[in-house]
Parts: sequence; C-alpha cells; structure tokens
Amino acid sequence: MSEDFDLQTFLSEEAAGVEAALGRAVAWIEAEVEPEIGAAIRHGVLSDGKRLRPILCVASYRACGGEEGEAAYDLAASLELIHAYSLMHDDLPCMDDAELRRGRPTTHRVHGEDVTLRAGAALIPAAALQAWQAAGALGCTREATTDVVRTLMSASGAGGMVGGQWIDLEGEGNALGAEELGDLHRRKTGALLAASLVMGAAAAGASPPRRQALYEYGRAIGLAFQITDDILDATSSAETLGKNPSDNELDKSTYVSLYGLDEATRRAAEQVDAALGAVGEAGVDAPALEALARYVVERKH
Amino acid sequence: MSEDFDLQTFLSEEAAGVEAALGRAVAWIEAEVEPEIGAAIRHGVLSDGKRLRPILCVASYRACGGEEGEAAYDLAASLELIHAYSLMHDDLPCMDDAELRRGRPTTHRVHGEDVTLRAGAALIPAAALQAWQAAGALGCTREATTDVVRTLMSASGAGGMVGGQWIDLEGEGNALGAEELGDLHRRKTGALLAASLVMGAAAAGASPPRRQALYEYGRAIGLAFQITDDILDATSSAETLGKNPSDNELDKSTYVSLYGLDEATRRAAEQVDAALGAVGEAGVDAPALEALARYVVERKH
Repeated sequence: MSEDFDLQTFLSEEAAGVEAALGRAVAWIEAEVEPEIGAAIRHGVLSDGKRLRPILCVASYRACGGEEGEAAYDLAASLELIHAYSLMHDDLPCMDDAELRRGRPTTHRVHGEDVTLRAGAALIPAAALQAWQAAGALGCTREATTDVVRTLMSASGAGGMVGGQWIDLEGEGNALGAEELGDLHRRKTGALLAASLVMGAAAAGASPPRRQALYEYGRAIGLAFQITDDILDATSSAETLGKNPSDNELDKSTYVSLYGLDEATRRAAEQVDAALGAVGEAGVDAPALEALARYVVERKH
Repeated sequence: MSEDFDLQTFLSEEAAGVEAALGRAVAWIEAEVEPEIGAAIRHGVLSDGKRLRPILCVASYRACGGEEGEAAYDLAASLELIHAYSLMHDDLPCMDDAELRRGRPTTHRVHGEDVTLRAGAALIPAAALQAWQAAGALGCTREATTDVVRTLMSASGAGGMVGGQWIDLEGEGNALGAEELGDLHRRKTGALLAASLVMGAAAAGASPPRRQALYEYGRAIGLAFQITDDILDATSSAETLGKNPSDNELDKSTYVSLYGLDEATRRAAEQVDAALGAVGEAGVDAPALEALARYVVERKH
C-alpha cells in the first residue's frame, strides 16, 4: 500500500458518505411503501456493513475523472440496496435460516418472514430507480445512464448474483470441484463487485480500455474477497465475524477446504496482484483502488 | 362491444403471440441461470394465464400507432415476467401458502421454496432487461426506452405492486374501510395494469394527452378487474377459478363483503365506462381496447 495513503481515514470518510446516501435512499423508499415494509428495509439496509461495493464504485468513478459530490454516493448506494436485498433473502428460513447478521438479529427475526420477503424484492426495482436518479443528477448522458442501470440489473439477476447463490446452496454437503467453485465465486461476489467498478467507470464516461481494466480489477478482487471470506470463516469466531460461520458449519466447499489455508492465502494475494496489474496497465493511477484491493484480503471481518 | 369485433379470436391470437414471446424470454433467462432456477421460472411463467397485461400492452402500442411484429410481444412479455414473480412469491408458505395456481400445483410445491424465492427475485431484473432489449428492437428512441423500463420498474416495486400486496395481507381478518380497499386495489392490480398501457403508449411514442388517457384507462380497468376478481371469488368454485378461493376463506375485505354483490357489479361497470370515456375523449379509436375493457368484467375466471 502507498505509504502516503491513510486507508482507515479513507474508509471511514467514504463510509460516512455512503451512509448519508443510504439514509436518503431509504427515506424515499419508505415514503412509497407501507410502514412495515419500510421498517424492514431500514433494518436491512442501514446496518453496520463495510459498504465495500459503494466505496469501490465511488473510487472507480473518481479514478476515471468523475468529480466529488453527493450524487456519486447516491449512485453507489444503489449497489448496497441490491446487496441488502440479497442478504435479507439469503438469511430467510428457507435459505440459510440465519439469526445474526452484522452482529444484529436478521431482518426476518425482527420484522417477520413475509415482510422481509416483500421488502427484499421491493429493493430490486428501487435500486434501479435509485441508480437512474443518481446518474441523472451526475449529469450522465442518456447512454451512460442506460449503461449504468443495465449493469446493475445484469449483476442483480439471471447470470449474476442469483445464479451464484443457487450454486452456493447446492454446494452444501457435497464438495464442489475447483472449476465449479471458481464459477460460484465469480458469480456470487464477482458479479456485483465487478458491477460496482463498471458502474463508476460508466458514470464517469471512461474509455473502453479503462472500463475494461476496472472490470478486470473488480472480478479479481471479487474472487480475492470470497477467498478471504472462506479464510475468515475457517479461522474466526462468530463474535469477530458478526455472523454465524454458517458456510463452515454446513460443510460447504470453500477455498480452505479445497486447497488448505496457505494455498488459499496465496491465491487471494495472486488475485490482488492481477487486479492491480489490470488498472496499472490501463494507466489508472488511483491509490484508493490499490489500497482497497489490499484491504479486501487484509481485513479481519 | 362493437359487433364487428370478435373478442375470442382476438384473445386467442394475441395470447399465442404472447406465449411465443414468453417462450423466447424464458429461453434466454434459462441460459443465464442454474437449471433448477430455470425450471422454476419456466413453471411459473409458462402457465395457462390470461396474459391480460401483455395483451393490453400490445393493444395500447397499436392504438398509438405502433406497428405489428414480434418485438411488441417481447416488450409485453416483460410485464408477464413481473406478474409471474408476484404470483410465485404470493403463493409461498410465508405468504398465502397456496397449493394450486391456474389449475396446477404452485411453483414452490414442485420446485421447492428456496428455488422459488430465488427464481421469483431473478425475474425482476430479467424483466427490466427484457423490456430494454424489446424497446431496442422496436426502434424506440433512447428516451422512450428509458421511459418504458422506468415505468415497469416503478410498477414492480416500492409504491406499486409490492405495497399493495402488503396491504392485502394486512387485510386478513380485519375489514378494511372503503378508502383503504380502494388504495389496495389501485396499487396491487392497478399499478401493473396501468403500466401495461403506459408502456405500450410510450414505446409507440404517443403524445402526452394520449398517454395520459391510456394511463387512466389502465387505472380504471385495473380497479374493474379487482372488483370482478372479488365477485368471482364470492360466486365461483375452485374448479372454475383454477385456484383456491383464498381471499374468501381468509376473510379478507373484498368489494363484495363491503358493498354486496349488486353494488360491486355496478361499480365494476362504472369503471369500465370511465376507462372507455378516457380513451374516447383522447380520440383513441381502438375496438380492441373497448372489447378488452368489457372482457375484464365479463370473464368467468
């Protein structure tokens, strides 16, 4: 990491910008739905998350020449709305049946299963509308706006996150091969992480090679992120993680179960190098992206 | 109804166009997801539905000068993807816990609860992408394309369908007042039905007054549709309906429970008149829209 880049200050400043944007997003969504659905959305979205996807989106936007301002965080918040939906549905009884998420009771434990089902699904079109609105406020061309919202929707649905979550569930109790595991992780974490970078680049009007580099960066750190999650699940307690180490308990295939701790660690580092190589080759000089790539594998939860 | 308009032939020809489009839609979605999710989507989407929303969309598109062709049905199919998602989720155990839908076992009874949850949610972004693709194929301007997809997403989420479904569930066991009931119905059925008309008009590049007329037509027949559903639920058997008359069983507020059969019937007819008045005043001459408005209240299931 560049010695002149203070990652912790950067992360906390960026997270504050994202939290404010999420507050604005939840406020307009609440005004459109019944109070009980709004409360569930508030619980699911305004939690103590890392906000990695929105932070990456803003970093990509800036690295491609986008200017500072609230609207960039508003755009980025749309990614967290999708991430929150996926967590709310993942935690439901018919999926992981999780009690704890980010150190708090899961949404359905507080607001009920029916309301959480509805609230999660409502976040998908809300995220599309949020991204549209923000792209307009950023002064994006109509073409860039379309590009941004399509990228979000593609990563949210068929072929993206949902496909990967499905493979994840199927992985319980039977070891996946390395190829399937790679596919799972590319889809599950990769699709939305890569979308974060691409959305930021598209909103800033980045050139195709630069945009491609940010996509490759996103895919690589998405994989590094998932490998690191597997490592943390294998080595941490629920208290540190703020959630139940469910992947481990359910005997799913993980990078650690498949390759062992040392090799998994090596592979995560390899992906970070690939991510930095991609942006470096495209001439993107962004200390934030470099620091974020390292943070993905060095984080403790 | 115009004597020279053969509604049954019209409906069956239009439904065939919609079915073909839904077949194309399900095929691309299946190619993007795991086989089990694809199978659940196929089950939920390719059922024996009335396809009223897509048929209305195509009728609106034509009434506003849009030309014949496959792509209009592809656009219209996006509405049925959203409708199918809402039925798949509505039928889940934590919601209505329904066994039967359109005379067949519900999706989760065949494909499981977890898969149906995922498959339903995957249909939301898939519908957005479907509408985008079709609007492109129709040669819509970028502005009209944005308009079309935004209309679909707005009707699918916060403030639209999901809000209404929530009120619906809350209505169980405690009688709603007339105002709440009107709000419920305007939202639940009205949002997506009105969107069907508006999407067709927007794709055809309709003038603002004409578009407004089609919106009003959509809201009015949406309400007429829901009142008629209440009447059918109160007077039909499960065999005729192809589903369990669940609203009745669960003692929900309905137009029939609130106003009685005669007054409910009168109110439905009043809405049909309002719908026809709106399009008539705007100079939209469309026998199909007239016939469809009457069909909404005269149908037997």
